[in-house]
Amino acid sequence: MFAPVYLDHNATTPLDPAVLAAMQPWLEAQFGNPSSRHEYGRAARRAVDEARQRVAAAIGAHPTEVVFTSGGSEANNLFVKGAAAALKPGLLAVSAVEHPCVIRPAEQLLRQGWQLKKVAVDGEGRVDCSDWREALAAGPKLLSVMRANNETGVLQDVASLANEAKGCGAWFHCDAVQAFGKLPLSFRELNIAGVHALTVSAHKVGGPKGAAALVVDKRVEIVPLIAGGGHERGLRSGTENVPAIVGFGIAAELAAARQAENATNIAGLRAELEAGLLALGARLFGAAAERLPNTSYFAIPEVDGETLVGKLDRAGFAVASGAACSSANPEPSHVLSAMGVAPEIARGAVRVSLGRGTTQKEVKDFLNVLQTTVVGLQRMTSVSADAA
Amino acid sequence: MFAPVYLDHNATTPLDPAVLAAMQPWLEAQFGNPSSRHEYGRAARRAVDEARQRVAAAIGAHPTEVVFTSGGSEANNLFVKGAAAALKPGLLAVSAVEHPCVIRPAEQLLRQGWQLKKVAVDGEGRVDCSDWREALAAGPKLLSVMRANNETGVLQDVASLANEAKGCGAWFHCDAVQAFGKLPLSFRELNIAGVHALTVSAHKVGGPKGAAALVVDKRVEIVPLIAGGGHERGLRSGTENVPAIVGFGIAAELAAARQAENATNIAGLRAELEAGLLALGARLFGAAAERLPNTSYFAIPEVDGETLVGKLDRAGFAVASGAACSSANPEPSHVLSAMGVAPEIARGAVRVSLGRGTTQKEVKDFLNVLQTTVVGLQRMTSVSADAA
Repeated sequence: MFAPVYLDHNATTPLDPAVLAAMQPWLEAQFGNPSSRHEYGRAARRAVDEARQRVAAAIGAHPTEVVFTSGGSEANNLFVKGAAAALKPGLLAVSAVEHPCVIRPAEQLLRQGWQLKKVAVDGEGRVDCSDWREALAAGPKLLSVMRANNETGVLQDVASLANEAKGCGAWFHCDAVQAFGKLPLSFRELNIAGVHALTVSAHKVGGPKGAAALVVDKRVEIVPLIAGGGHERGLRSGTENVPAIVGFGIAAELAAARQAENATNIAGLRAELEAGLLALGARLFGAAAERLPNTSYFAIPEVDGETLVGKLDRAGFAVASGAACSSANPEPSHVLSAMGVAPEIARGAVRVSLGRGTTQKEVKDFLNVLQTTVVGLQRMTSVSADAA
Repeated sequence: MFAPVYLDHNATTPLDPAVLAAMQPWLEAQFGNPSSRHEYGRAARRAVDEARQRVAAAIGAHPTEVVFTSGGSEANNLFVKGAAAALKPGLLAVSAVEHPCVIRPAEQLLRQGWQLKKVAVDGEGRVDCSDWREALAAGPKLLSVMRANNETGVLQDVASLANEAKGCGAWFHCDAVQAFGKLPLSFRELNIAGVHALTVSAHKVGGPKGAAALVVDKRVEIVPLIAGGGHERGLRSGTENVPAIVGFGIAAELAAARQAENATNIAGLRAELEAGLLALGARLFGAAAERLPNTSYFAIPEVDGETLVGKLDRAGFAVASGAACSSANPEPSHVLSAMGVAPEIARGAVRVSLGRGTTQKEVKDFLNVLQTTVVGLQRMTSVSADAA
């Protein structure tokens, strides 16, 4: 197989070999349903329990606070719609730069009598303090702010935002899918600050697709999205995806153990990458804000993002032109729009997200290919401009 | 690992080695996110498309009618709640023996102004014709009747029920999770008869946990349970579980190809099993009805089901005392209650479900161990009765 250099770790990550090794027995002889009351079932139940303990330990939560879901989108929908269903309709406030799997379910609630406020961000993508206070003053019942943005990597100071929200009695949810493994993350600490629920996902941290968790303070009443046999304390029915959950347990443990070292290494590589990008005249989005150590989101003058990503792909480098999850719908990024970036600049947006396996050579090779490609594209643009 | 004889195929099935082999590359080098617009992403997208074609071909549907979900519970919830959300509240009718993942979401709709009718079944577990007509006369908007029951294996004549319902304008859903692979199954034929949606699941047919499908007539409007990036034609957002979906494709293809031969072989083994059960004085639930070829659900006088399952487990045979999915909650089976079985008899219920790998020797060994175990338990019961 043709194996381009993978620089799109915010979209998904390769399965860590240690994770796959741990999953393998559960894909083979140990195939039981954890609800079955025989040896196959009990073995599967023990594996799920152990994975729950690993995930809980990795994010500083109690195992009984971990609700396994099939993915981050399900976990975010479970919080937004599940917590709303247990309340009388009121105000829900989310940041304008949330992932679509927070914004869309929030919009679905409008039909049930909820109001939705999208809290503004500044030019760097950080939640605007005065608009946040305005949201809180309006007496919200539910709040959701992500820890790190999937496109820009820009961080929100979730602990401070939650702390400010303490008085208003709302349940505060944080989508930590992109933060997990890249930053220190403790549900216990965030919970003390006023965060009541957290979403984390396996496939963003070297784990498998098909497992994620909503970590949730037990005071929050949640109506299940998927009702049935009563799995996951009644909050998520359906036969547990045992191999994926086992893999998530190991991946979470490794992500927590390696976080500090990975962050340092990757931040060093990102600094080299961004020095090269700036030398090419790139505009770096959110560069003045605190960001994830692995993400660079940029545009190069007069270069279309989609075109550049296609050329880089053919040259052997896998990067993203927008959030992978909405790439089916190539409108200008709602994140950049919220940051006030003009559409003609947003159309140039390219995201490079480094990962644990990324090497210095890969970054250098990428910059070389990028320069050649950009020069070629800019020449074409100027030729066609001359011709016009 | 201690490997008991597995006779619980309605709970879950071992992953077919050919299925695992097909999944393996997607757990290793081919880890891309199908929404990514580079080589890794495109390869994953092709794999999901191909799996969709395989699943569609296996169940006689068009690929665009297949909506992948994380499991059968999610697919059933997606139909019940998703179709209801697109309608004004009205009457929903489901059979009284549906799986909890149909009944519970149906009950959740009561809070939104829906009425729920549980249609009665006869003593063999078949939908009662006059109660069905009563339900139709009340002008239902949604109907859900399973093709085969997970506990008893009893079949519903879904094509006839749907045909009768044609005039009333309701959307008709059929949970075919247990029927798929054990009976011929064609969505196209059922659709002509008046069925608008069908649920099938991978892990019941030698496929992986984590993949299933709602097959749905495009005239049915469905509001997504999991909203976000707009995957699966907007009906189910979230990064596709590529390895599980690939495995589902192969498993579905194999299930369809092997169905007739498997059914004949397994029906032969089941006849031997049931001759032995009857010789032990067992009462066979639903025996006079058409049933799946692989399932025997029975009770032996004065023998508690849970106790018997535990003894058989220790003797090396994995069978179920009730539906695995609700084994966390050992109340008498709602299926047997609906059939009018007295609670003291229902407490004796044991389910044996044979599978592709089951051998004649395993069935004979099982009957021998069962006889010894039952005689031992009955002796204890009569001793304690004498002592009382």
